[in-house]
Amino acid sequence: MMDMMEFGRQVLAAQPFSQLLGTKLTRFEEGLAELRLTLKPEHLQQHGFAHGGVVAYLADNALTYAGGSVLGGNVLTLEMKLNYTRPAIGEVLIARASVVSSGRSQAVCRCDVFAVAQGKEKLCAAAQGTIVPVSKPSKSPK
Amino acid sequence: MMDMMEFGRQVLAAQPFSQLLGTKLTRFEEGLAELRLTLKPEHLQQHGFAHGGVVAYLADNALTYAGGSVLGGNVLTLEMKLNYTRPAIGEVLIARASVVSSGRSQAVCRCDVFAVAQGKEKLCAAAQGTIVPVSKPSKSPK
Amino acid sequence: MMDMMEFGRQVLAAQPFSQLLGTKLTRFEEGLAELRLTLKPEHLQQHGFAHGGVVAYLADNALTYAGGSVLGGNVLTLEMKLNYTRPAIGEVLIARASVVSSGRSQAVCRCDVFAVAQGKEKLCAAAQGTIVPVSKPSKSPK
Amino acid sequence: MMDMMEFGRQVLAAQPFSQLLGTKLTRFEEGLAELRLTLKPEHLQQHGFAHGGVVAYLADNALTYAGGSVLGGNVLTLEMKLNYTRPAIGEVLIARASVVSSGRSQAVCRCDVFAVAQGKEKLCAAAQGTIVPVSKPSKSPK
Repeated sequence: MMDMMEFGRQVLAAQPFSQLLGTKLTRFEEGLAELRLTLKPEHLQQHGFAHGGVVAYLADNALTYAGGSVLGGNVLTLEMKLNYTRPAIGEVLIARASVVSSGRSQAVCRCDVFAVAQGKEKLCAAAQGTIVPVSKPSKSPK
Repeated sequence: MMDMMEFGRQVLAAQPFSQLLGTKLTRFEEGLAELRLTLKPEHLQQHGFAHGGVVAYLADNALTYAGGSVLGGNVLTLEMKLNYTRPAIGEVLIARASVVSSGRSQAVCRCDVFAVAQGKEKLCAAAQGTIVPVSKPSKSPK
Repeated sequence: MMDMMEFGRQVLAAQPFSQLLGTKLTRFEEGLAELRLTLKPEHLQQHGFAHGGVVAYLADNALTYAGGSVLGGNVLTLEMKLNYTRPAIGEVLIARASVVSSGRSQAVCRCDVFAVAQGKEKLCAAAQGTIVPVSKPSKSPK
Repeated sequence: MMDMMEFGRQVLAAQPFSQLLGTKLTRFEEGLAELRLTLKPEHLQQHGFAHGGVVAYLADNALTYAGGSVLGGNVLTLEMKLNYTRPAIGEVLIARASVVSSGRSQAVCRCDVFAVAQGKEKLCAAAQGTIVPVSKPSKSPK
């Protein structure tokens, strides 16, 4: 029987974009997920910080994992909100997401993204989002 | 004298992450910005759609450009919110952002992201965010 | 047969909180809703502007109406995001909401809230939210 | 010398809308704020739950207090995002807000709103928002 972490890593390995960036799943259990990304020069913007899009990608992905950990099976991020709290400067980004509330039809999750510089974590973004089970498409959206 | 589009393209060229993805600035004028991204296999997630993080990156960047077009000089995205409305399937993503309200201290902007498949645009995400001028740091955030 | 506007007004009349505030439904058709609120002293905060909570209430309610106009039947606001763009000063607040995208399971809507002072409308808030059909509860949320 | 709680209560007493609803400030210290509202029939919507606008008002106000506790002086809510996690049924609503990150120019805060029924608290909404110091208006927003 495959454990949860093994399953989570297979999903990540199946995402070409996560492979392009180099994301690692470092924690995945009921209600919690942690992703890590070692920053490389190609992840930066014009001032030498991690691009906001990299931070948003990592938050989005961690929220989806956290929601998936309680909803099970196939899920997707319906929406999310992200506050950038400080420039993402450092060697590594860590996104830690947890479930705030979950039911049959949705999980509301929060995620904190930290930049690690010289071993010290500093919060660089705070996110909140809604994860939903993927429903079989019975009708196309307009 | 350098025109606005030329300036905008230099900023994009100075963002290694935008270069990694291949983003193009296709419109940039007062109150408006449009970015385009030709989708490649490495932009996808496990179901063959553009990864939500790619869509979020493009929306974030277009919002920042739109806000910068009215605030002038150095700006950053303070926060944003993104609704995914449909899987991003197609050859190209187009993010169109516009300014809803702007003052001295902030610009509130909206962005629609479209996936173009066989020449037809379909909305795949709707975003809203706050862009602020970069202030000289007189005190570090806690 | 009852028309849409009549139905919408009955829903509003059945909301004690909307009656307490004095909200009027002034437009309601497929994909669109408009609510109006004549400001009274009890709607204000300590600086004489409409309280942010009044603006948020009006935006939330207009988003729900807009979503309900395309989803039909019973709906609720799953989540929303609101940017305050300027102090809400004037005699009347008008919230205009429209549907950005809709499918079987959700409608993504946007809403602009205007304060009307001396006949002139000024945008005081911009909102975006997700409206969903009310599902029969088969399992309690945790 | 007036203490923080006394100051916070005077601000609330100066908000006619908070007086109309009957909001109480029950905790206010550096980085934290708690508001309580005893639900009355006029706070409800058509299904007998607290109206989403009441919940949004309470979250908005608690976020502002939390931000104000670290920014000092005059502050306002720039924007907020709110997920409704469950119908707000009960006798009392409690909004607990805390500061996630703060600097010179903004405080990012989160707020959980609970409905208390028969002595039991259940989360009915989760919010996140940006609080900023009120700047002297040197130029009107467009």
